[in-house]
Amino acid sequence: MDIWTVIGLVVVTALILMGIMLGSPLIIFFDMTSLLIVVLGSFFILFVAFPIGRVKNTLKVVKKAFKTEPRKADELLALMRQMSTRARREGVLALEDVARTQDDEFLKRGIQMVVDGHDPEAIEDVLYAELDKIEERHKEGSKVFDYITNAAPALGMIGTLIGLVQMLQNLEDPTKIGPAMAVALLTTFYGSCIANIFSMPISEKLQNRSAEELAEKALVAQGLLSILSGESPRFLVDRLNVQLPPSERFQEAS
Amino acid sequence: MDIWTVIGLVVVTALILMGIMLGSPLIIFFDMTSLLIVVLGSFFILFVAFPIGRVKNTLKVVKKAFKTEPRKADELLALMRQMSTRARREGVLALEDVARTQDDEFLKRGIQMVVDGHDPEAIEDVLYAELDKIEERHKEGSKVFDYITNAAPALGMIGTLIGLVQMLQNLEDPTKIGPAMAVALLTTFYGSCIANIFSMPISEKLQNRSAEELAEKALVAQGLLSILSGESPRFLVDRLNVQLPPSERFQEAS
Amino acid sequence: MDIWTVIGLVVVTALILMGIMLGSPLIIFFDMTSLLIVVLGSFFILFVAFPIGRVKNTLKVVKKAFKTEPRKADELLALMRQMSTRARREGVLALEDVARTQDDEFLKRGIQMVVDGHDPEAIEDVLYAELDKIEERHKEGSKVFDYITNAAPALGMIGTLIGLVQMLQNLEDPTKIGPAMAVALLTTFYGSCIANIFSMPISEKLQNRSAEELAEKALVAQGLLSILSGESPRFLVDRLNVQLPPSERFQEAS
Amino acid sequence: MDIWTVIGLVVVTALILMGIMLGSPLIIFFDMTSLLIVVLGSFFILFVAFPIGRVKNTLKVVKKAFKTEPRKADELLALMRQMSTRARREGVLALEDVARTQDDEFLKRGIQMVVDGHDPEAIEDVLYAELDKIEERHKEGSKVFDYITNAAPALGMIGTLIGLVQMLQNLEDPTKIGPAMAVALLTTFYGSCIANIFSMPISEKLQNRSAEELAEKALVAQGLLSILSGESPRFLVDRLNVQLPPSERFQEAS
Amino acid sequence: MDIWTVIGLVVVTALILMGIMLGSPLIIFFDMTSLLIVVLGSFFILFVAFPIGRVKNTLKVVKKAFKTEPRKADELLALMRQMSTRARREGVLALEDVARTQDDEFLKRGIQMVVDGHDPEAIEDVLYAELDKIEERHKEGSKVFDYITNAAPALGMIGTLIGLVQMLQNLEDPTKIGPAMAVALLTTFYGSCIANIFSMPISEKLQNRSAEELAEKALVAQGLLSILSGESPRFLVDRLNVQLPPSERFQEAS
Repeated sequence: MDIWTVIGLVVVTALILMGIMLGSPLIIFFDMTSLLIVVLGSFFILFVAFPIGRVKNTLKVVKKAFKTEPRKADELLALMRQMSTRARREGVLALEDVARTQDDEFLKRGIQMVVDGHDPEAIEDVLYAELDKIEERHKEGSKVFDYITNAAPALGMIGTLIGLVQMLQNLEDPTKIGPAMAVALLTTFYGSCIANIFSMPISEKLQNRSAEELAEKALVAQGLLSILSGESPRFLVDRLNVQLPPSERFQEAS
Repeated sequence: MDIWTVIGLVVVTALILMGIMLGSPLIIFFDMTSLLIVVLGSFFILFVAFPIGRVKNTLKVVKKAFKTEPRKADELLALMRQMSTRARREGVLALEDVARTQDDEFLKRGIQMVVDGHDPEAIEDVLYAELDKIEERHKEGSKVFDYITNAAPALGMIGTLIGLVQMLQNLEDPTKIGPAMAVALLTTFYGSCIANIFSMPISEKLQNRSAEELAEKALVAQGLLSILSGESPRFLVDRLNVQLPPSERFQEAS
Repeated sequence: MDIWTVIGLVVVTALILMGIMLGSPLIIFFDMTSLLIVVLGSFFILFVAFPIGRVKNTLKVVKKAFKTEPRKADELLALMRQMSTRARREGVLALEDVARTQDDEFLKRGIQMVVDGHDPEAIEDVLYAELDKIEERHKEGSKVFDYITNAAPALGMIGTLIGLVQMLQNLEDPTKIGPAMAVALLTTFYGSCIANIFSMPISEKLQNRSAEELAEKALVAQGLLSILSGESPRFLVDRLNVQLPPSERFQEAS
Repeated sequence: MDIWTVIGLVVVTALILMGIMLGSPLIIFFDMTSLLIVVLGSFFILFVAFPIGRVKNTLKVVKKAFKTEPRKADELLALMRQMSTRARREGVLALEDVARTQDDEFLKRGIQMVVDGHDPEAIEDVLYAELDKIEERHKEGSKVFDYITNAAPALGMIGTLIGLVQMLQNLEDPTKIGPAMAVALLTTFYGSCIANIFSMPISEKLQNRSAEELAEKALVAQGLLSILSGESPRFLVDRLNVQLPPSERFQEAS
Repeated sequence: MDIWTVIGLVVVTALILMGIMLGSPLIIFFDMTSLLIVVLGSFFILFVAFPIGRVKNTLKVVKKAFKTEPRKADELLALMRQMSTRARREGVLALEDVARTQDDEFLKRGIQMVVDGHDPEAIEDVLYAELDKIEERHKEGSKVFDYITNAAPALGMIGTLIGLVQMLQNLEDPTKIGPAMAVALLTTFYGSCIANIFSMPISEKLQNRSAEELAEKALVAQGLLSILSGESPRFLVDRLNVQLPPSERFQEAS
């Protein structure tokens, strides 16, 4: 679990609550109607904007933002190096044994294509087509949150306009103007909180997770293509190493 | 019919109406002049911005957002696989029989070009040129709604400025200030509702539908090119499968 | 003449005027100083932002938004098909006769290059280089209007700030506050109207006209290249047809 | 000198001053502190945002917006045509004489590379690499002004917030509220003026000048490559002509 | 140390403080709760938006904005020229001696690949893949600051909304309205300052530093590839020189 996402959410929420409670009881920031307009509104507008399948997927996608996927670039390079050495000594068919010991579907399918002796260019096509599609699906996930980031403050403003119009039509009792306007502002407040504390950072995290996952898969793809073209294991390591930050690079045990 | 688009629109509209009616009679949110400025204005400005053909097309395009086009990727892959097998055994001319059983114009025209024995590169050109043009036409459809998303709130603000100027020129009777300003705000309210509840989500849905349709057509194009280059049916399935989400992939009946 | 552009402009302007006149005399929305700041300001700032040639061109460009250029895709395809048949039967030199009967400079120059027997790749280069440059010049035209769309409301806000500062320095007579602020808001009103009713939709129309014109010229270019590479007239029609919406496609008279 | 840039700046500034002076003495729009915050602030923030070399360059870059660089496309084409004819008759070495009569460094260096007999592809690389770098340096110039366009209004708003907070803490004397708020608004006014009358149009002009200069240099590059590949002078003229607006095209003296 | 970044930050901060202190004691601009919401909030929201590794990296990245990395293009070209001459005379193996005298890892690794006799195309791939990845890592650094630029004002507005709602619920004592609203505005003030004086210019500086570093590394990469393809030292200098501003170009000592 990515504890830091939770810590971030908890601390920022606590700061907002503290900001409220130091000045007034929390209850004046609660208005059921406003809450329904902004929260339910931001949710049901997704039904109009996205195919139902992607709305249903949203919950699953949120979970991803809370999961740690430790980067195993180091290990991965060791594996690719070993595969390269073996392919050179025993031929690519030997890689089938490696495939059996691995969990990652992308790697296994890639090895299988190499072993099957397909045309290298066709393999490259397929590997990169899959990367493109994975990126596209990831983007579909974060776009739902980007939509909420736009829709929630907009619905908040619609709610505030409703409150303002009602207040302005009804100015006789001056003591009610303040509280009426306070309530009118709550929808804007809710909309801002949803956008800035929930959907915008979650979308950003999903995009970052996606970039990490794709970078890792790109290493696998490039490693396989390097093996396929018969490059030396050492050059394969060079090729992949330069794509990692210096601190994560694979060191040849010498 | 895509019932979810309707549900989304109904629920969000109901939330807004509820927000209004819990605080005041609905009638104070109705002002004919404001409505005409925003609704007719947002419509007639389209005549200036777009060729008349595209404005006329708008209604047809809206309907698309309410139609379900179930993705039949699974079936499609089965068909492509069968075509590939047949082309290998009986030659590409046999595909003409397949073309006769299919409804999809894009697929039929593609098969015809293969059967006619045109240059593979030229066929690739034509297939992808059509995909590009379909995408372009889809974008033309959603751009009209994007334009409304900008124009409606802008016209709303123009209407509100008119109301404000009139109110400020006429401050003698303080009891009228409130209601006058309330009415002035209505155009902004209408503009926000049109943009955020109607045109923005519809545009997003159209873009998503377009992406789905293009992804499906791209599978057809790639399948045909794979058949043309004589790849094995199994590799064709691999090639197309990696472009689908894992849950929708075609499973070889073995 | 594109009557719809005129209708759109007239109706939207009428709606605004109606919105004003139902509530007050039109005269209170007229302030010469404000008008000069926004209208002249938006015009003269173009002298700073663009080379003088492009400012002078603006009027000519506006006219384009009011001109109908009926798409003649259908006719064009018939012509290309006929040229293709003739080139196959009589050789490309016979196209010189066709060139003489045509008005379109782009088409004539293209045929000339084909007849002159230049290298096909060089011809492709030249045709597409011209398309790129036409697109660039069209963009230069619409960018001037995009600039006005930004500048007019900004100058409006500067005018409003001037009015606000003057009013705030001079609050002694409360009866003057309202009218002073009303006048201050007029520059913002003028700026919004110029941007949203004039420059933004005109820019959009120009871009749409540009896209239509380029799509047509691209058909010509592709047709010529198809003739040059000796493709069959029927395939040429296929090639071009897929780029048209289904309703506009060329039907072989059979 | 590009007199139109000066005219534009003078007229727009005069309109603003007129707008002020018709309503109040000019002096109430002058506040030294506000001016320092916005003007010095917008300048010194550049030290944080850009390497010092680019800040120092800013003044030199501004001058460019006031310089006229008449497009000499016509002359240039005549020169390229003559070079092409000569290269065909006397060989490319003869171009060295032409180089000596020219001022333009880009052209001279290009001719030199042709004369030196380098690999055509390498020459193409070098010519386009230089064009890319020139464009990059031009963009670096206009980006400084784009930064000011964002920073000046933001600093204006910070200044206004300072004024508002001070006024709100000090509401006892109602007669001071107006003037205090007027002064607070001045920073926003200054920020808007700097952004909309100075930095935004200057940045746009610089970008337009850059596009003109690059288009001219691209003609030179393409002309040289055409000569190098032995194309006929007439085709060279066609090749370059299509990239000019019809009114500026080179007419063969026949 | 890049003293100019410090000077810029100090001067702009001093201008703001001066703006405050000329009108009121500094203390009224200090509110602990507001400060915590904006500063801690903008920091902890990064935990939600970015992987923890990148948040931790932020401090290291900030330092980069204060470091001067003098461009040594001149020296670099001299070195490349000398390497080219030597490689021509003594063969590429002689470059190994050069590698030993250099610090730059990118250059050393590049020379090593050349000496090892790898395929030139593969070397090109690896060099540019590393450049791409370096650019990506640089962008990851500046994106954190771009995020703060959005989040700080948004949290400021949330804080201001809290203050406004509390004030509006509590209008009985009119003398408290002003100060309450003043405090409410402080979060917006803090948010604006963080965004415009800290995170936005720092992000811009980081992007500029990144561009400089990459341009230098691109020179190394192109120089190595030129050596590898056996181009003359003089052409190598031409090739690299055109990518520098005229004032920084390498002059052959003749």
